[in-house]
Amino acid sequence: INNPSPPPPTPPPVQRTLILKLEAAAIETELLTDYCFGRQQLVETWGHACAIAIARAFPLSSLSKKQPTVLVVCGPEQNGAVGLVCARHLHIFGYEPTIFYPKRSSHPLHQDFTVQCEKMDIPFLSYLPTEVQLINDAYNLVIDAILGPETDLSPEKEPYGSILLTLKQVKIPMASVDIPSGWDVEEANADGLRPEVLISLTAPKKCAAAFTGRHFLAGRFLPYDIQKKYELNLPQYPGTDCLTQL
Amino acid sequence: INNPSPPPPTPPPVQRTLILKLEAAAIETELLTDYCFGRQQLVETWGHACAIAIARAFPLSSLSKKQPTVLVVCGPEQNGAVGLVCARHLHIFGYEPTIFYPKRSSHPLHQDFTVQCEKMDIPFLSYLPTEVQLINDAYNLVIDAILGPETDLSPEKEPYGSILLTLKQVKIPMASVDIPSGWDVEEANADGLRPEVLISLTAPKKCAAAFTGRHFLAGRFLPYDIQKKYELNLPQYPGTDCLTQL
Repeated sequence: INNPSPPPPTPPPVQRTLILKLEAAAIETELLTDYCFGRQQLVETWGHACAIAIARAFPLSSLSKKQPTVLVVCGPEQNGAVGLVCARHLHIFGYEPTIFYPKRSSHPLHQDFTVQCEKMDIPFLSYLPTEVQLINDAYNLVIDAILGPETDLSPEKEPYGSILLTLKQVKIPMASVDIPSGWDVEEANADGLRPEVLISLTAPKKCAAAFTGRHFLAGRFLPYDIQKKYELNLPQYPGTDCLTQL
Repeated sequence: INNPSPPPPTPPPVQRTLILKLEAAAIETELLTDYCFGRQQLVETWGHACAIAIARAFPLSSLSKKQPTVLVVCGPEQNGAVGLVCARHLHIFGYEPTIFYPKRSSHPLHQDFTVQCEKMDIPFLSYLPTEVQLINDAYNLVIDAILGPETDLSPEKEPYGSILLTLKQVKIPMASVDIPSGWDVEEANADGLRPEVLISLTAPKKCAAAFTGRHFLAGRFLPYDIQKKYELNLPQYPGTDCLTQL
């Protein structure tokens, strides 16, 4: 009688927590087209979660300066719009954000997010001091919402080249939205910023593997079917939190 | 020498926590036009806060049925869209919402919110059982997102007249979005629903004075200048919460 050896165990499906640049773009397209999410809805959700991450990483009571000042640096595309929403919610939470938004997007949605900040009396800087000590003295922390995975800009392109050079010398803590500006979506870059906190949107990008600071994920809205399709194994979110720490 | 009597003390400014129907409409217009908020942004924010209120009032661990089922009844206008967003977030939080949405809005925004629910496999009922016991047995609670302050429908208008008649006989707890369906914005109506929980959006409407259940407010985004203009004295929100209990 044949006694067949048991079949080899099926290998477990590849499960990942990091996504590539093309996947990030494909997931966003899928959310916008198949799931009919709106950009306004997504940017509001991300920016709100970023503000909560900041409040968790840098609680009002922990700030060293007398005023709860925060400098929010916003880039020209979607990442910058997330920064605008984050600034608005920080203002609502009792922080005193100041926005530096050197090249304003002409996208009507981004313009609306800008008006929301302006009408709530959040100040906008007309230029970034090149004297780094002024930034160290004036703010408790910097939020880097400059270059995101969707940005095709070279980090050297002005004015962002100079801004990154200045921010790299800043001594106060920094938090980056989605990817640290200057990094590639798929790998770290020693010439890029070195934030203490990273807030990944939707799913962490591959470059986050090289990040050693405090890492939050803001993407609870991501439908299960998309996670399955991309073989993602994202962490659970506790309770009703829109945020989880990795 | 004249010794004039001191001037009468200035009366304190009228400070209110309840708003009238016209004010509710005016505040929403101001948010949309002056502050450039988007409807999508507001409805997402409200629906998300409603889901958090439900999770707080009816935690998963407290539900009496084996499955964490919730029936979400959505009306034809904005209140119904808030219900759709609430259902999606409840699904994300681990509840099992079922939506009853008898007259679907043709507003593209509401259609998008509908697709988001459908694509996340939230079931839609094609009719509401008139046998109330079926509802009592199948669900832990009902969310009333039927008629809001913006609705000019008479509560008797079909199919809402029959729906309200059915829901009034339901024995499981009910939570209403913004105003209990059947109530006027400015006064309670004995013929309307009698929810255990009320979730006021932006600011409580005048009819909420007659509400004796558990009352949440979801309107943290309301700019300070608007609160001042309408002489509102709304409660503080704790920490980074999007919700406060009154």
